[in-house]
Amino acid sequence: MAFEITILGCGSATPTSTQHPTAQLLQMAERFFLIDCGEGTQQQLRKYQLRMGKINHIFISHMHGDHYFGLIGLISSFHLMNRKNDLHIYGPSSLKEVIDVQLRVSDTRLVYPLHFHAIEPNDEKLLFEDKRVEVHCFPLKHSIAISGFLFKEKPKERNIIRSKIEQYDIPLFEINKIKKGADFISEKGEVIANADLTLSPPKVLSYAFCTDTAFMEKTAAFVKDVDVLYHESTFLQAEIKRARKTSHSTAQQAAKVAQAANVRKLLLGHFSARYDDNSLFEKEAEIIFKHVTATSEGMRIIAAPNEISIQF
Amino acid sequence: MAFEITILGCGSATPTSTQHPTAQLLQMAERFFLIDCGEGTQQQLRKYQLRMGKINHIFISHMHGDHYFGLIGLISSFHLMNRKNDLHIYGPSSLKEVIDVQLRVSDTRLVYPLHFHAIEPNDEKLLFEDKRVEVHCFPLKHSIAISGFLFKEKPKERNIIRSKIEQYDIPLFEINKIKKGADFISEKGEVIANADLTLSPPKVLSYAFCTDTAFMEKTAAFVKDVDVLYHESTFLQAEIKRARKTSHSTAQQAAKVAQAANVRKLLLGHFSARYDDNSLFEKEAEIIFKHVTATSEGMRIIAAPNEISIQF
Repeated sequence: MAFEITILGCGSATPTSTQHPTAQLLQMAERFFLIDCGEGTQQQLRKYQLRMGKINHIFISHMHGDHYFGLIGLISSFHLMNRKNDLHIYGPSSLKEVIDVQLRVSDTRLVYPLHFHAIEPNDEKLLFEDKRVEVHCFPLKHSIAISGFLFKEKPKERNIIRSKIEQYDIPLFEINKIKKGADFISEKGEVIANADLTLSPPKVLSYAFCTDTAFMEKTAAFVKDVDVLYHESTFLQAEIKRARKTSHSTAQQAAKVAQAANVRKLLLGHFSARYDDNSLFEKEAEIIFKHVTATSEGMRIIAAPNEISIQF
Repeated sequence: MAFEITILGCGSATPTSTQHPTAQLLQMAERFFLIDCGEGTQQQLRKYQLRMGKINHIFISHMHGDHYFGLIGLISSFHLMNRKNDLHIYGPSSLKEVIDVQLRVSDTRLVYPLHFHAIEPNDEKLLFEDKRVEVHCFPLKHSIAISGFLFKEKPKERNIIRSKIEQYDIPLFEINKIKKGADFISEKGEVIANADLTLSPPKVLSYAFCTDTAFMEKTAAFVKDVDVLYHESTFLQAEIKRARKTSHSTAQQAAKVAQAANVRKLLLGHFSARYDDNSLFEKEAEIIFKHVTATSEGMRIIAAPNEISIQF
């Protein structure tokens, strides 16, 4: 199994003619998760031909406009497109207020069910789970309340070795138990260890999203061993004082988190518009952590158990 | 003198990958007026290299998102760009509520003064005037309260004929009075009629903006004799029933308003995304009113006393 992230925007603060504010689409276990939703996100989804109607869960990190100003437009377009599916939005409780007032003043009664799930400041909790995926939030450090998000595939069942079914004459109703780890007791009372019947399941994969945040050592604990970590790097090292003052991070600080957390791949983004060449972020981070990519709009990151590839 | 309109978006409802929602920049008498502000307007201003910092007045017709969802992003960007000038926003009172809640939840105290001027339902009044321009609102007919806007240059002073100053030995302090229409009385008590001293001032120009609206005969009275009329035409004539049901207009209905109002030029826009070829709107309208242009993104309409030209 693999998951895929599409970068819809990786700029910070003010959009420019070439740079959209933060938004990412994560496709994991056939679910479509939208993470942050800056102005213009719905047009970016269309530009990159992503099936926006399949998005059932939207996660908003915090209430700075470059992370949510596109949400009300997307909610409205879903309405005009006559959406049927439930839509779940996870974010600060004030986000609900912002949505509600805009639906009220336009006299809009949504044609689909919208469920709002509030994240309180400093929440560290399970936000969503189904049989294949779970999503957690954890606190970051910024000028206003903010959450990181951790997306994890759930452990899969063990693979039963087909030849063993015949060898031990295993009845159908036992197979599910064995896939879950049970031993098998034959009709003769012989115990066959699960390890003799099955192979390990495919590795489960995980993704963590950290923006906007000052550097914090404890972030590494929240994102320990994830396959892919997105960590903001608004500034280069020469602007470390500005990073501290504005509660943002440098590329090297992001790399320190990646190194301490032992991730497979670090993605950088939320670049200040003052920089023309985003590859400089990669170069600075590589000194500390070499598996790093500076994101760009339209970039797709495909993470499989054995390989993480980048496509444009 | 001339004025110039730049079309930043002329789509309706849901933005598509090729079509932005409503926004126009009107440059009249060296003032920059932004009319409506759909999602992505600030990026369109940048794309067409328009000096967004010079916009001091923004007019919002109504509270449907395709006409205002880009406003909060623009307000925020002005803040991040450290704007100094006062910003005046004219729109339904609920727009202030929407702005205020979003500034509050992001803990933003704007670094520039923002003045909100409420338009109540059915208001027909002067919204703004200075020495060169005045802006009025008037009611249109839609599913929620909505205003059209009329932008008029103020009458200019008469041009004094230079040779007459010498001929009649006109002192400097009399010249302003003569430019305003006064006769001149010479030292000998001789009355020289103003018409002998001056030439007519250049014609003043006007622009009217009408979206979204059902066809109304009385719209023509509000926009009588304007140089350029923008009138929405969401639908073609085959969809006239849908136009009525949704309180929108067809291209032919827009043409009827233009004809009755005796305008020089009709601009069409707010096209439904169901149509691929917007020139069809022009063709249908031409049957009734021949001076018509279907707008497109980036189009500039330059209106001078003797000519109205279109540039791309």
